[in-house]
Amino acid sequence: MSIRPGTSTTLPTDPGPLSPGAHLERMRSAAPLVQCITNHVVTNVTANVLLAQGASPAMVDIPVEAGVFARIASGLLINLGTPTSEQRDAAREAAVAASAAGTPWVLDPVAIGALPVRTELAHELVALRPSVIRGNPSEILALAGAGAGGRGVDSVAGTDDALDAARMLARTHGSVVAVSGAVDLVTDGDRIARLANGTELLTLITGGGCALGATIAAYLSVAHDGDLFEATVAAVTNYTVAAEVAADATRGAGPGSFAVAFIDALHALDAATVADRAVRS
Amino acid sequence: MSIRPGTSTTLPTDPGPLSPGAHLERMRSAAPLVQCITNHVVTNVTANVLLAQGASPAMVDIPVEAGVFARIASGLLINLGTPTSEQRDAAREAAVAASAAGTPWVLDPVAIGALPVRTELAHELVALRPSVIRGNPSEILALAGAGAGGRGVDSVAGTDDALDAARMLARTHGSVVAVSGAVDLVTDGDRIARLANGTELLTLITGGGCALGATIAAYLSVAHDGDLFEATVAAVTNYTVAAEVAADATRGAGPGSFAVAFIDALHALDAATVADRAVRS
Amino acid sequence: MSIRPGTSTTLPTDPGPLSPGAHLERMRSAAPLVQCITNHVVTNVTANVLLAQGASPAMVDIPVEAGVFARIASGLLINLGTPTSEQRDAAREAAVAASAAGTPWVLDPVAIGALPVRTELAHELVALRPSVIRGNPSEILALAGAGAGGRGVDSVAGTDDALDAARMLARTHGSVVAVSGAVDLVTDGDRIARLANGTELLTLITGGGCALGATIAAYLSVAHDGDLFEATVAAVTNYTVAAEVAADATRGAGPGSFAVAFIDALHALDAATVADRAVRS
Repeated sequence: MSIRPGTSTTLPTDPGPLSPGAHLERMRSAAPLVQCITNHVVTNVTANVLLAQGASPAMVDIPVEAGVFARIASGLLINLGTPTSEQRDAAREAAVAASAAGTPWVLDPVAIGALPVRTELAHELVALRPSVIRGNPSEILALAGAGAGGRGVDSVAGTDDALDAARMLARTHGSVVAVSGAVDLVTDGDRIARLANGTELLTLITGGGCALGATIAAYLSVAHDGDLFEATVAAVTNYTVAAEVAADATRGAGPGSFAVAFIDALHALDAATVADRAVRS
Repeated sequence: MSIRPGTSTTLPTDPGPLSPGAHLERMRSAAPLVQCITNHVVTNVTANVLLAQGASPAMVDIPVEAGVFARIASGLLINLGTPTSEQRDAAREAAVAASAAGTPWVLDPVAIGALPVRTELAHELVALRPSVIRGNPSEILALAGAGAGGRGVDSVAGTDDALDAARMLARTHGSVVAVSGAVDLVTDGDRIARLANGTELLTLITGGGCALGATIAAYLSVAHDGDLFEATVAAVTNYTVAAEVAADATRGAGPGSFAVAFIDALHALDAATVADRAVRS
Repeated sequence: MSIRPGTSTTLPTDPGPLSPGAHLERMRSAAPLVQCITNHVVTNVTANVLLAQGASPAMVDIPVEAGVFARIASGLLINLGTPTSEQRDAAREAAVAASAAGTPWVLDPVAIGALPVRTELAHELVALRPSVIRGNPSEILALAGAGAGGRGVDSVAGTDDALDAARMLARTHGSVVAVSGAVDLVTDGDRIARLANGTELLTLITGGGCALGATIAAYLSVAHDGDLFEATVAAVTNYTVAAEVAADATRGAGPGSFAVAFIDALHALDAATVADRAVRS
């Protein structure tokens, strides 16, 4: 900001939080190393989503190695979609190591509620204070103890139905909570952002939500001034804007074509497109 | 059926079994929740194939949870492609729970014969009376004790070579048996359908057969009057017709393009296209 | 070679090693059965890459079965990307069985160095004298005890930085060593080939390197006169030439489109295209 002589001198205004587009550029420059302990349905698409955005995926998910790696990774995702016993041990180890080392981490409590093993593990992990919790409304409600969980990986509730649960989780665990739906909701307990980008096609391909969890982990590592709330908003915004671009590019072709175009759009995304399309209230 | 006055009154003729196209519409309306315990090569494509068709996949394949979920799922697939010890326990548990709860389930005995662990498990599971057994001719022969199994996941025999074995398995275990090949064969021990749709390209992508097993599980849950034979015929017909549409759309482009177009075609498939293309004898 | 009467008779000159294109045709005719014990991020793409090239993938990676199958497979890949405890046992078993049965096998020591479990296993397996070792420079340096390993699956070193380590490994273990990078390097300790085909896009999709390991295993099984060095050169050449063709076909579209086109290009590749494009020094 230049201050021209002869005008009345004012203090520089607070530039405000970093925009999603600026976060995108920071993330691409940093090429963060994102450790993923995730379900075996989406490992491939998750790795490709990260690579397309300029991050570096590392699916280090076995005991002993998971903890070692969580100390050097830029960010960590723990997704409970298909939690084998080795993955459960690896998840515990990595969450502890990440917390100790200051590695930001995301918990995605996939399909908790009716399924006992993952539900117990999710409650154990959330007590370790994840940087971000990401889920659909049913999962957020179940994690907050306010619902019985969804129909498998699907959710029947809207994101605003989970707002109170999300705020409670955020305040209790010091986490940012991101609730996915037609309108995505992000809160740190105080601030609330409603993000209205995206496309229904994201629900017609597997990994649409899971790979967003990994994307958030990538953005957390480049949070500006430690503002994980805005980094999460940026991750959700950029990801869903890219999905819109892909939907436009393949309109009517179907989910197979969309999945391919989505990877292309994530790779090609720029700050101008994000600024042009992002819808936040 | 309206009966016009003045015409001779006749009893309504039996409308016959539901067509594959009618099954398709029933399945899309129901959006069945399909539990898959399947191999880690094809989890992603299986989930995408189910989503594209309007079903809801849930890869719940760990002990404790597998049994819980099999009680609430609309249908279940057990595919033995890469059976880890946890998956083997999960498969046993889910098969027992599905049988007890009346959840229809499909057994896909991938590559049994020469490989001892899965062969033993397949024999154990078939005794639990799966609703449908799906395999290539070598696998069906091996399961019936009539052959030594194939060359890995490939089969050297034709489907009619496995007809006697398929009928025997169907009668012994009260199952419908679907044998995949250039001409697909479906039998319940008495009825036999030969279905001549499809494309060789399905054998050039991984999961072509495995995702069909999941598709059958989706259709079983909407079987009309409990007719699992016709539901299986519908699943095979609709799946292979969509493959033909995709092959036509990408003629000459290769298996990468075909795989994408196949997902699109499964999503776009309608009853008219099926009626137009289906070949059954 | 015909010798025309009236010309001075000469002994036929040594035709030299088989070209990559000739290897391609041999491989397609043989349709080798390639066993893969590989990481769960790339199982799907690895199977599709093998199928597209005319090989037959078989992901047999559980204890007991892995050893049985390694005796009948045409070639074997052991990739340490996500080594669960069952996969580690399966890998040991398969390596011993392959060596005993004369099945050629490839070791891909993914991300060794900083990660202790896989590093220890890689050292154990390399002592069993794999036919080929494939890795990026960091992995080859770490396996030779000459480096601390890379940044997860990435490498910061160039292939020539790993030349001495590669030659040492080749001589110590009787292996061919293939080092992947902008210029790929293949050595058997004496001979060195530098192969300059490929595209940066291969690094933007997951499995770009891992599926090459499986491709090498397919080519080893059709090595001419037991020349594994030339078979490895052929595998790398054909694979990277197909990647170039795919990059040309989708220029600017992004990594999603490239991944699809790469499968198509592997399927369509012919000896003339390889002869036209291959760059070797």
